Amino acid sequence: MPHRRTITGFSNPTVKYLRSLRDKKHRKRERKFLAEGLRLLTDARETGRVPEMLVMAAGREPHPLLTALEAEVERAGGEIVETSADILSKITGKANPQAVAGVFAEFDTALADLDRNAAPIWLVAQALRDPGNLGTMLRTGDAVGAGGLILIDDSADPFSVEAVRASMGAIFTQKLALARWDEFLLWLRAGPEGQSGQLVAASLRDAIGYREAPYRAPCFILVGNESQGLPEAYEAACDLRVTMPMRGRADSLNAAVAAAVLAYEVLAHLER
Amino acid sequence: MPHRRTITGFSNPTVKYLRSLRDKKHRKRERKFLAEGLRLLTDARETGRVPEMLVMAAGREPHPLLTALEAEVERAGGEIVETSADILSKITGKANPQAVAGVFAEFDTALADLDRNAAPIWLVAQALRDPGNLGTMLRTGDAVGAGGLILIDDSADPFSVEAVRASMGAIFTQKLALARWDEFLLWLRAGPEGQSGQLVAASLRDAIGYREAPYRAPCFILVGNESQGLPEAYEAACDLRVTMPMRGRADSLNAAVAAAVLAYEVLAHLER
Repeated sequence: MPHRRTITGFSNPTVKYLRSLRDKKHRKRERKFLAEGLRLLTDARETGRVPEMLVMAAGREPHPLLTALEAEVERAGGEIVETSADILSKITGKANPQAVAGVFAEFDTALADLDRNAAPIWLVAQALRDPGNLGTMLRTGDAVGAGGLILIDDSADPFSVEAVRASMGAIFTQKLALARWDEFLLWLRAGPEGQSGQLVAASLRDAIGYREAPYRAPCFILVGNESQGLPEAYEAACDLRVTMPMRGRADSLNAAVAAAVLAYEVLAHLER
Repeated sequence: MPHRRTITGFSNPTVKYLRSLRDKKHRKRERKFLAEGLRLLTDARETGRVPEMLVMAAGREPHPLLTALEAEVERAGGEIVETSADILSKITGKANPQAVAGVFAEFDTALADLDRNAAPIWLVAQALRDPGNLGTMLRTGDAVGAGGLILIDDSADPFSVEAVRASMGAIFTQKLALARWDEFLLWLRAGPEGQSGQLVAASLRDAIGYREAPYRAPCFILVGNESQGLPEAYEAACDLRVTMPMRGRADSLNAAVAAAVLAYEVLAHLER
């Protein structure tokens, strides 16, 4: 397989393959995903993730970060594909001839692989629907020094283009696990005595103020589905239910916003 | 004009008009916007905003909130349009035959109409690009009891379907103003002595910890464009630059998340 090749036809199988990765069914079959943008790909490289395939427009302006990335892809035995600006825009969905995209293998997402004591905070989302919210939670997780994001029940795909983009590179730095609720609870409660982890949910019922709550690490911050919120049984299983002020007409926040406000509060408490 | 009519053809001018409101150019010409969902429309009604036109599928299941809404629309001299599920889905962009949509007149958005002392917190966003972020900021503003959202420079359209949806009704409860930066600064600084307002930005330069900062009402929380952040001159013009912990690789948060973390912090400080 040559390291570098040029593709000029829309019907080329590689173009079809790359476009198919915008679609969940194909991603799951191939176990690959697309990440776009030089900054994101550089973040990936700096955390040791090198794309199997790098795609850009032929004649793209040179950039030192791109040169470094190309060298790394070649060293790792990956492929560099140059194509026309038109074909590139079909792949990325954007009319930006400076765009760069990379194909990565999906990560393993087994709960058993998480070391819960590797970080003071973990984010947990139940039945999250919006890939933008999912990516934003990864980004927030990176910012607060969380270990990763645990996705409970059926969730948006963390490897979708939208989620990867909204994560701003955190898809490569945060751990990711997918689990059913009962699996998660079993795993959580089976941890070492006294440090198995505290499960915290924002709640309206039977809750204490989120600024005064006795958070302790590792703290697992649980948010629910965008339209349904958390099932009652899930809330009941939490170690701590906290409430945030709601001064207006609404009784809830955007899921990614609620996770962030709570996560920053927990961070401040744990670092006191 | 009859209060209630049925539309059966895709080429009906009302259908074209309703579909055109998904498009910014047409919204601006008509000065109207679409809001979707019974809950959102009920929020609107409860704050005194009644749609000029209400659209739903013929034979939709009855619902007491819908009945109340229909009565209000008729009382206000508005129109009720029933159509097929197919046509409805062309209008709303969703395949939900239970959907309800309303047409509202756009609000006035003059800075001069804001009473800055009507609320302790105001959100200010500069060159915000993502309508989802915009709507989420409105929703957060409602939750923290903010007065409204001030959009500086060229911004996503607050009346876009995406922004209205993400606001979860807060488009109807939060004040909204559009202004150029210099207009805004002039207005802000011309306020009454000692209560003209404190302008606060999240910043990495020359900043103090966001948990210790001396916030005071009315506090204007300023966030910048999603990819560029705030221009240096804008940061320099702020009364307070605060910094939030960044424990990971990234040096920034999603704009709506940053606004929310800061807004909840300011709320806690002001209520101490």
